[in-house]
Amino acid sequence: MAEAGNVQECIALLQGLRAVRQFRPQPIPQQVIADILTVARWSGSAKNTQPWEFLLVRDRETLKALAALDGFVKHLADAQLVVVLVMAGENEESETYDEGRLSERIGLAAWAHGVGSSIGWFAPNARTTAKQLLGIPDDRLVRTAISLGYPDEAAQRARPKPAQARKPLGELVHEERYGRRSDS
Amino acid sequence: MAEAGNVQECIALLQGLRAVRQFRPQPIPQQVIADILTVARWSGSAKNTQPWEFLLVRDRETLKALAALDGFVKHLADAQLVVVLVMAGENEESETYDEGRLSERIGLAAWAHGVGSSIGWFAPNARTTAKQLLGIPDDRLVRTAISLGYPDEAAQRARPKPAQARKPLGELVHEERYGRRSDS
Repeated sequence: MAEAGNVQECIALLQGLRAVRQFRPQPIPQQVIADILTVARWSGSAKNTQPWEFLLVRDRETLKALAALDGFVKHLADAQLVVVLVMAGENEESETYDEGRLSERIGLAAWAHGVGSSIGWFAPNARTTAKQLLGIPDDRLVRTAISLGYPDEAAQRARPKPAQARKPLGELVHEERYGRRSDS
Repeated sequence: MAEAGNVQECIALLQGLRAVRQFRPQPIPQQVIADILTVARWSGSAKNTQPWEFLLVRDRETLKALAALDGFVKHLADAQLVVVLVMAGENEESETYDEGRLSERIGLAAWAHGVGSSIGWFAPNARTTAKQLLGIPDDRLVRTAISLGYPDEAAQRARPKPAQARKPLGELVHEERYGRRSDS
């Protein structure tokens, strides 16, 4: 748990994470990467299976090749570092869920250090090629590649932003039974 | 991002989250629940679809009925509050992943306040019954129910703990291509 004075700071971090896809060409210090990987390593998973490995990619040509594949992956081309999540490929439902948990921890750990991130997502038809480009065995599942880098705030302001609003809690929260709304 | 003095505090929170399944009978303050729900509401999702609603259950009889279903759900019986994730049920892969992201934010926001949590997981054959118990429309997907409560540390010490160790980073991290290990 967070110490008393830091609770709201940590809540603000957890609430404030947004996707960043425009990055400055500033390297991420090794100590920051070490923190991100340590948080990733300690992520929870079903039955503590830890069905993952982390492939760190910085090589610009490799990143451009990955960014050209189908999916939501264009932003990989300009990242300072990409973490490819190499999943065991043994249990589709629980691994997909655990992959989401892991991705969230990576994004949050980066953002604690001011490093922006965006989840990259290979379309199903691009996953075999992504594995071949990276030398990943065919029996693994590769779907997520997380872009990391310090935000380029000027470039972010210059681009049209997708709506990032969220539904109000009044539409999302039910009490005791579905359809029963909170009084508060 | 976290302010300078708080970075390591937030990293420690992100690294330190562990499942808690023994709870004290101490209510969770409304302000803490509000923080958890606000963090949940701001979780990211594919194309910002926010394919979720949150059903808060405290009624002990309902929790006991849910805890008796198949799956990893026994701990629901003693929780102070259970958040059932009601998913839209429209896109299996991306919703499963987003459900993992959402679950992680809820557990982390609770832990920032010292509230423990554990993910409950209904077995596939129990999901229809869970929906019926809670009045949830049949077209929704209900799989995850998160137990929340202040940790009962004495009870935790008295029970055999499952191994919570994690694989070392040396086994998990590859550089540039799969199989190439980091020098650091």
